[in-house]
Amino acid sequence: MDPSQVKIPPMKDLTVDNITENVIRINSLCEDERMKYVLERLVSHLHDFARETRLSSKEWMAGLLFLTEVGKICSDVRQEFILLSDILGLSILVDSIDHPKPPNSTEGTVLGPFHTHDAAEMPHGEHMSHDPKGEPLLVVCTLKDTAGRPIPNVKIDIWETDSSGRYDVQYAEREGPDGRCIMRSDGDGVFWFRGITPVPYPIPHDGPVGKLLKLLRRHPFRPSHMHFMFQKEGFDHLITALYLRNDPYETSDAVFGVKDSLVVDIGRAGSEYAKKYNVPEDQALLTYDFVLVSEQETSELRERNSKLALDKLGRKVKIVNGLPVPDLD
Amino acid sequence: MDPSQVKIPPMKDLTVDNITENVIRINSLCEDERMKYVLERLVSHLHDFARETRLSSKEWMAGLLFLTEVGKICSDVRQEFILLSDILGLSILVDSIDHPKPPNSTEGTVLGPFHTHDAAEMPHGEHMSHDPKGEPLLVVCTLKDTAGRPIPNVKIDIWETDSSGRYDVQYAEREGPDGRCIMRSDGDGVFWFRGITPVPYPIPHDGPVGKLLKLLRRHPFRPSHMHFMFQKEGFDHLITALYLRNDPYETSDAVFGVKDSLVVDIGRAGSEYAKKYNVPEDQALLTYDFVLVSEQETSELRERNSKLALDKLGRKVKIVNGLPVPDLD
Repeated sequence: MDPSQVKIPPMKDLTVDNITENVIRINSLCEDERMKYVLERLVSHLHDFARETRLSSKEWMAGLLFLTEVGKICSDVRQEFILLSDILGLSILVDSIDHPKPPNSTEGTVLGPFHTHDAAEMPHGEHMSHDPKGEPLLVVCTLKDTAGRPIPNVKIDIWETDSSGRYDVQYAEREGPDGRCIMRSDGDGVFWFRGITPVPYPIPHDGPVGKLLKLLRRHPFRPSHMHFMFQKEGFDHLITALYLRNDPYETSDAVFGVKDSLVVDIGRAGSEYAKKYNVPEDQALLTYDFVLVSEQETSELRERNSKLALDKLGRKVKIVNGLPVPDLD
Repeated sequence: MDPSQVKIPPMKDLTVDNITENVIRINSLCEDERMKYVLERLVSHLHDFARETRLSSKEWMAGLLFLTEVGKICSDVRQEFILLSDILGLSILVDSIDHPKPPNSTEGTVLGPFHTHDAAEMPHGEHMSHDPKGEPLLVVCTLKDTAGRPIPNVKIDIWETDSSGRYDVQYAEREGPDGRCIMRSDGDGVFWFRGITPVPYPIPHDGPVGKLLKLLRRHPFRPSHMHFMFQKEGFDHLITALYLRNDPYETSDAVFGVKDSLVVDIGRAGSEYAKKYNVPEDQALLTYDFVLVSEQETSELRERNSKLALDKLGRKVKIVNGLPVPDLD
């Protein structure tokens, strides 16, 4: 590189007190306004964290080696950085910020690290879990918009563990997807399928995130749940899950995902459902009515929340590509 | 795990506004007070970062994938997380916090990712670089305490690149250490050796950190410098470097390491040095007088700075194992 091309403002003798403004000044050569703002906040918080903790060189090195380990254990079927984000509450926070919900719509929750892109599309009524040890569960749901109208043809991803609390991808000898499927809602906004009753399970805790949980004296368990993801043009992407009431970990989820509106009771099919869906009367039954929010409503709500939050910081906001940056004009 | 052993305060329905206090409450089960405090500040800043940027799910995922890449490229001879910390100004900040310097002592600077533990101990006068293309450089230094007394028998690590700007570990076919050595100061606090005149070089920029610098329109160069590390019981561990005056990157170091007190002129040996050290009179010469600070003086200064910083935060400090934690009594 030709040194005459260096456009960085001259700097030397950086101290505990002036390093932050100088790093921000250099990064402000960035031409992407959103990235510039994200980096400004990142550097400010990173430096304040070090200043407020008086971080020692030894702790700094321990932190870097921890992050290195987190990266090293990641593979095609394991994402330890998502886990780390989950157990620090960052995942649920980002979901809440990016997918704000008006009252009476279905709340979102953590994606987790086990969604895959290879699930098969299945017709209604299909078995999406083939674990013979699982308790058979009939699941019947509806999908509506906030005005109560059924939404047809929504792409729905559903995934759950087997009866031992493991996802298919956690088996080295996995031959193909199981305990996961893709469905589409019908003209009445209905979809239904056969799965198994979810069980509680620990998040993978044989790696660095597990070690951290142990140091914090936290358990790695998630309460019994089934994941759902909904996509249709015009609607905000909904990532959510349903949790079973009275699970032993209902109020201590290792990744902070449980919301009261997503807690459900497992019932029994009874004669009407048994007949209609061709299952035994004592078959376990889960029903739920999901409500999706339009993209426009979400985007307006997101923008309103952004303005409020940045006002609090004393920074006027403008929206670039749907995301806030400070308005310097 | 036995659910009856769960000691976590019950929580559900976590929102943008209450997630932080809940994560901190759970982490406060940790019995290590220092770790509890570091985690409290980490979670607060991580969450504030997301709230203030209104971080989107897409950006969150991009960030996690970036960190995964940083971890993946790390190896025995490459530490990309140190590089990331370096270019964000965190490394120099942590060094300044952990190794505060009283006036008239030698300032510290970034360690960088290229120190190794396999350098050979060499007697004074030895060639520590065997690059035939390097410009021979005679280096003669003294080592004193803040009262001006020579310090004998200090373990000194010295490392520099070859004439092409690469450290030995950056060569795949490396057979052993070169451009690095360990020396000990003599009874007069003197040490001297033969190296080569340092050249500017780019930090490794073919990985994720290089990509980030490019997005920020920053160059990856470091000005010409030679690394020094000093260790002796009773003295604060000093990691520093000497920088050549008028280097094209003197005021735009990619890792923010340059301090005026560490900038030196390269002279010529002249008749006196030539005779004493058996080198040609026109041989390039670098001299420097290092001043080490006692562990006690550093520790008192560190503690004073910690108290001031935490007072500003409105938190009374107590010192546990030499590091501050809030005093809740």
